Amino acid sequence: MNPYWSRIVGDLAPYTPGEQPKLDRLIKLNTNENPYPPAPGVVAAIQEELGAAGDSLRRYPDPEGGALKAAIAHHYRQFGIAREQVFLGNGSDEVLAHVFCALLKHGRPLLFPDITYSFYPAYCKLYGIAFERVPLADDFSLRIDDYLERDSAQIGGIIFPNPNAPTGRALALDAIRALLRAHPRHMVVIDEAYVDFGAESALVLVREHANLLVTQTFSKSRSLAGLRVGFAIGQPELITGLERVKNSFNSYPLDHLAQVGAIAALSDNAYFERTRAAVMQSREELARQLAALGFGVIPSAANFILVRHPEFDAAVLAQHLRELHIIVRHFRQPRINDYLRISIGTPEECAALAAALQYFVSQSNKKEPAP
Amino acid sequence: MNPYWSRIVGDLAPYTPGEQPKLDRLIKLNTNENPYPPAPGVVAAIQEELGAAGDSLRRYPDPEGGALKAAIAHHYRQFGIAREQVFLGNGSDEVLAHVFCALLKHGRPLLFPDITYSFYPAYCKLYGIAFERVPLADDFSLRIDDYLERDSAQIGGIIFPNPNAPTGRALALDAIRALLRAHPRHMVVIDEAYVDFGAESALVLVREHANLLVTQTFSKSRSLAGLRVGFAIGQPELITGLERVKNSFNSYPLDHLAQVGAIAALSDNAYFERTRAAVMQSREELARQLAALGFGVIPSAANFILVRHPEFDAAVLAQHLRELHIIVRHFRQPRINDYLRISIGTPEECAALAAALQYFVSQSNKKEPAP
Repeated sequence: MNPYWSRIVGDLAPYTPGEQPKLDRLIKLNTNENPYPPAPGVVAAIQEELGAAGDSLRRYPDPEGGALKAAIAHHYRQFGIAREQVFLGNGSDEVLAHVFCALLKHGRPLLFPDITYSFYPAYCKLYGIAFERVPLADDFSLRIDDYLERDSAQIGGIIFPNPNAPTGRALALDAIRALLRAHPRHMVVIDEAYVDFGAESALVLVREHANLLVTQTFSKSRSLAGLRVGFAIGQPELITGLERVKNSFNSYPLDHLAQVGAIAALSDNAYFERTRAAVMQSREELARQLAALGFGVIPSAANFILVRHPEFDAAVLAQHLRELHIIVRHFRQPRINDYLRISIGTPEECAALAAALQYFVSQSNKKEPAP
Repeated sequence: MNPYWSRIVGDLAPYTPGEQPKLDRLIKLNTNENPYPPAPGVVAAIQEELGAAGDSLRRYPDPEGGALKAAIAHHYRQFGIAREQVFLGNGSDEVLAHVFCALLKHGRPLLFPDITYSFYPAYCKLYGIAFERVPLADDFSLRIDDYLERDSAQIGGIIFPNPNAPTGRALALDAIRALLRAHPRHMVVIDEAYVDFGAESALVLVREHANLLVTQTFSKSRSLAGLRVGFAIGQPELITGLERVKNSFNSYPLDHLAQVGAIAALSDNAYFERTRAAVMQSREELARQLAALGFGVIPSAANFILVRHPEFDAAVLAQHLRELHIIVRHFRQPRINDYLRISIGTPEECAALAAALQYFVSQSNKKEPAP
């Protein structure tokens, strides 16, 4: 280890994001981006903020993001969300980092699924948080009893995505409500990065549960991965704790353009409903097609599907697709090593993927069956 | 303390940024923003990246910021800087946060001046870093001997801005070179947020000194506070350590538009030279005017000046200016409580400020003299 590094640096387990290759005519189904552009008002709002000379750029942005917080609270007003209940960050990754630091370090192990967003253990290493991976069921569903039955005195908190990633499986609201009641003195963080593609949001529970924090992002259902805007919603004291950490780290994580772009995206509900419905429809169609080719498809409420073919090695399939300039994600980790995670593209992209897999399945000399 | 907060949250000392009021016709000289808009190419580059539909925004940005790193390395090629020696962050505040975490936690106290950027102690609290404030001289100069004479075995590292903030005083390169040699086994971080307004950059020393890290920002001399881009330059292993921390926190801190905007700003050297020269000229003119009114003016190599009038209370002066819609910064802290920090505006803004102070000085019933 370099002698100038702080001791912690050697112990970290940094997250590896999906690649962002710069190939032309690539079908990029590896990082769960939305296949549709952002709402048309986004570009207009950014251009207005820019003006002719970009004069606004010389000013620091609003460190509080007050207008965006108000827009988010307004958007979720049916859940009684106030501006003081909204925390903003540079993508939900930054939001989650501050959540781990501010709300999830309590000396006892934080619980999360064994198969889940692989950034969680990286955050734990960064902040010195003990954690325990709770195995999903064989069908990758989250067994809520495994969490309900834990002795509250022995755990530090709970976090999982709903729907989970990279499985796509959703958990019903009743299970989350039961969890909040079973461990009222512990934080339960529901990471809803993908919630708009078919799961029930826990936001409806925020008013009643002081121990609930919900995180969401503009990167998926709002088509703004490139602008870096995420948020968390919880009762005001949780937000105060998060703000204390954020203001000990970076006062201005969201630039001017991201703030106005996110507000514009939120204001076009018709576009939002249309595009997320299109993604969900493509997902169901693709799942049907791949099932017909013999793939096992985990039921997904997200903008991706996790699939496995009993006769073909996932790495071989991924390589075959890559040669055709179709990029999907293959995680080399226990239990999902045989699977591919495929982001839902446009109908044309999904059709190209399905055709490529069909060709492979029909032509290939079959490899050894998976055990 | 809220029971859901991690223990550290109660111990934090969050930074308070200068206010960003939304008043019309405000002369805003409180947060060291550049009075000139960014280089004309910035808006064009952002508009090109946006395109008609904002389609690029649905994609994650390059997590490495490879093109921007290459542009920064190229810009500083006379110092032999390679792309692998550049670290990027969401403003130099985020860069500094990662620097404190990755490179400045060594069990022994980190040294920095008693009067300096007030975010440093906030970072220390966040990461549990012991620190010691080394008093500046009475004239607010940094006495390099106070650092040179310290026993290396008793310190954890050194950080200060050059020029210092909020004093504006610059330190000569020879002093920094001596420091790097006196403590070769310790990190020396030079925070050059304001260096382009008249100080010597330590970048020329990076090649020879494995213990040097230099941080800079696009927020000041590049007029891009609103885009959030900062960077650090050091030998490759230091950058590797920083990347490990960054990738345990947030893979994508710089959005697409910020990356292309920063590259465009860097490419227009003529504009850069012209605007920074204008700021420096305004600074000298304002310093002369205020000195003529009886103000003590600390010699500044930054885009602000720290001034004090022997007969008037700084808070009263700040309030008087505020009533005229001129906002400056007054820090209520030891040693500089009698001072105002005034960002350098356009010649017109500086003239308005000088006129307002002249009126006050000439008309006021003089308050009790400062002790």
